Amino acid sequence: MADLVSALADIVGAANVATGDAISDDLTHDEALTAEARAPLAVVRPASTDEVAAIVSLAAAQGVPVTARGSGTGLSGACIPQTDGLLISFDRMAEIVEIDLENHVAVVQPGVTLAQLDEATAAHGLIYPVQPGENSASLGGNVATNAGGMRAVRYGVTRNQVLGLTAVLGTGEVIRTGGKYVKATSGYDLTQLIIGSEGTLAVATEAILRLHPRLAHGATVLIPFTTLDEVAAAIPRIVGSGVNPTILEYIDFLTMGAITASAGLDLGVPQDVKDAALAYLVVVLENRTADRVEEDVVELAELLTELGALDVYVLPPGAGASLIDAREKAFWTAKAVGADDIIDMVVPRASIPEYLAAVQEAAQATGSLVVGCGHAGDGNVHLSVFQSDPAIRTDVVSRILRGGAALGGAVSGEHGIGTEKKAYLAAIEDPTKIDLMRRIKSAFDPSGILNPGVIFD
Amino acid sequence: MADLVSALADIVGAANVATGDAISDDLTHDEALTAEARAPLAVVRPASTDEVAAIVSLAAAQGVPVTARGSGTGLSGACIPQTDGLLISFDRMAEIVEIDLENHVAVVQPGVTLAQLDEATAAHGLIYPVQPGENSASLGGNVATNAGGMRAVRYGVTRNQVLGLTAVLGTGEVIRTGGKYVKATSGYDLTQLIIGSEGTLAVATEAILRLHPRLAHGATVLIPFTTLDEVAAAIPRIVGSGVNPTILEYIDFLTMGAITASAGLDLGVPQDVKDAALAYLVVVLENRTADRVEEDVVELAELLTELGALDVYVLPPGAGASLIDAREKAFWTAKAVGADDIIDMVVPRASIPEYLAAVQEAAQATGSLVVGCGHAGDGNVHLSVFQSDPAIRTDVVSRILRGGAALGGAVSGEHGIGTEKKAYLAAIEDPTKIDLMRRIKSAFDPSGILNPGVIFD
Repeated sequence: MADLVSALADIVGAANVATGDAISDDLTHDEALTAEARAPLAVVRPASTDEVAAIVSLAAAQGVPVTARGSGTGLSGACIPQTDGLLISFDRMAEIVEIDLENHVAVVQPGVTLAQLDEATAAHGLIYPVQPGENSASLGGNVATNAGGMRAVRYGVTRNQVLGLTAVLGTGEVIRTGGKYVKATSGYDLTQLIIGSEGTLAVATEAILRLHPRLAHGATVLIPFTTLDEVAAAIPRIVGSGVNPTILEYIDFLTMGAITASAGLDLGVPQDVKDAALAYLVVVLENRTADRVEEDVVELAELLTELGALDVYVLPPGAGASLIDAREKAFWTAKAVGADDIIDMVVPRASIPEYLAAVQEAAQATGSLVVGCGHAGDGNVHLSVFQSDPAIRTDVVSRILRGGAALGGAVSGEHGIGTEKKAYLAAIEDPTKIDLMRRIKSAFDPSGILNPGVIFD
Repeated sequence: MADLVSALADIVGAANVATGDAISDDLTHDEALTAEARAPLAVVRPASTDEVAAIVSLAAAQGVPVTARGSGTGLSGACIPQTDGLLISFDRMAEIVEIDLENHVAVVQPGVTLAQLDEATAAHGLIYPVQPGENSASLGGNVATNAGGMRAVRYGVTRNQVLGLTAVLGTGEVIRTGGKYVKATSGYDLTQLIIGSEGTLAVATEAILRLHPRLAHGATVLIPFTTLDEVAAAIPRIVGSGVNPTILEYIDFLTMGAITASAGLDLGVPQDVKDAALAYLVVVLENRTADRVEEDVVELAELLTELGALDVYVLPPGAGASLIDAREKAFWTAKAVGADDIIDMVVPRASIPEYLAAVQEAAQATGSLVVGCGHAGDGNVHLSVFQSDPAIRTDVVSRILRGGAALGGAVSGEHGIGTEKKAYLAAIEDPTKIDLMRRIKSAFDPSGILNPGVIFD
């Protein structure tokens, strides 16, 4: 141990290695509701790719586990270190290396936060469009989990924005994948493979990100419906209409009540409409000109009225932003009122009503409360599970995940598997695929030191 | 051999196995200019995923190479079989399994052609937007090469459209990846890894494809410039303006002359402008309404005039379509006039002028003629190389690829590496990455039977 710490200090300087009581509690957990905090053997704070490579080489030689951590805002336990392992913290690698206006890309270190990048891109009329709802999240973590968020219906998720990576393999070797271009067919796409691998294949130390023009005009539209089937039926019609929504969310009436109450938000919906509304759609339309936004709002309103909406509310700009903000904070609202677990399954979007029926059946069968909202355009349903008994909670979560899998869904749309959903993945997923993933991990990380126990055992 | 053929006949029926003279010459080559045709030991025509799995299992047990083939329109030799191997031909697996209007996806077998899918989606006001310029190409081949084409600047390439795959590993095991949803973080993205792997990791037997609303209105705009630097400078401005072009191509004056002459096309550009124009931009704008297209054309014309365009021509619909068609046939024009090789390198789009300067330097140093056009918005430059001496041709192609690699580019943007560019890839690419790719291949295909010798040796 002393030898290891001394070797780490040789790499990053003694001031950038912490052990024992010097390790901040903040570094021992993420935001998963079910995960236990764990302190690592040592926290290491590298300042360069070369230093990361040296740390990983050292760890590989000694068989010491390595977990990488950005802001620690994950929801699946994937950045909680091993007690006998190292935690690489990226707070010293948090620079925007470049905003390239000709190629419309940003080059960032893993510790850069979404807030930091948003400010830098806004100055040039550009946007990095992945907004998973937590602006303090780091880009390194976003890459590791393939972060999504509300704007995915228009812009896609992290994997659609990352054009290239610098990454350290489990051998300590450094590779550079992709580049400042949006396409290539020159061997296997290692960039895509590393994205979403939750730190188990490689440690990303730099990313090339695609930027988009920032749209200057927008409107937030709130649409109550009496049934979820109507909401589900409206979604393909909205997407098919070509208005190309930036955000297309559904919120059930319980969640809507909770997030608006928590934010002290009055959206101007009359009580009789509130009483009749079982589910809401929230649609954000954006465009280059105010005229086009206005035209699109009119078209959307006509379409939704025809599809049975109780009413269509174009929210004043302040209220619109507050509602989106409150929706982004839905997780915190759920946590504050005592949710015991969260699920972010993805199903074919047309199967949302059937999936939610299965969810309610599972909730009733186990005496649990399950409420939710979701990225309706993507079929990514976020559920808060209230069930304090751990065994029953495992049962209800299993039932919910099996219900979605039967509809062709996947365990997680954007939170990842981490440690907290891996037992469910193992139970649901085809063992042939899990075995294949294990062999792929061995190709990147022959000694198995990178985030062991995450995604699969 | 007789045993193998008999075992294959047991799987697919004797009528669907061909050997010797019964093998059509068509199945021995693709469209690569430099590749030699090769007939396989046997051609097998399966009708289902199970039959493909049985064929691959048999081949794995006997160590017999397997190459899959769609329409054979590839440009890198990747579907040319081994003389001691099997060729799986997908002409009996050419069905559109489903057009799902609620989830906006198509489910297709690998032999389905782009033309077939385009007709089926058009009937519903939808589009599969990848149009690599050859409508007889098959979706299986598109997945294998991560096909791109002119519309990639707006819609991305094949990997941005494929949501899931059914695929047979080199072990004969069948996996199903992804689903009818646009995002997931539930283990490694096997879909993305298989796309672009040119048949070396798995044989795809079904694909779930994302569909988009088909835009009803469009305009084709032709813009001559006196220098390529001006063209390059205009590209980020066009993309940044938000007009969101569907197509953004540059065509050099030699290629423009050749493709318009070959198509007998008069675009109405006066002779003095033609004489002054060294490069052209072709921009296609599409939108839901004719008004918006018109507004965008005006905005584009103002922007380009300000950026030094010689003039801006909004082509009559017929001429616009003919120009795009002629551009799509640029490869055939080059082939007809005797091109000896083609290159489709991708570089950061802002580096196109510098890259093309390096290209012309290489051409002059070796006494070769190199002309081109390209997907300017993507940095994907298509070059025709005229040099009949094989050794000098290897030299000029090497110089051109090294020139692009020095600018951060990749060997191929969309054609793939196949057999014809693998020596160049081996010379240019980081050996650490090639070794990693070899280990990944072993994870999918432990006996090394899937398209051996493609991408790397």
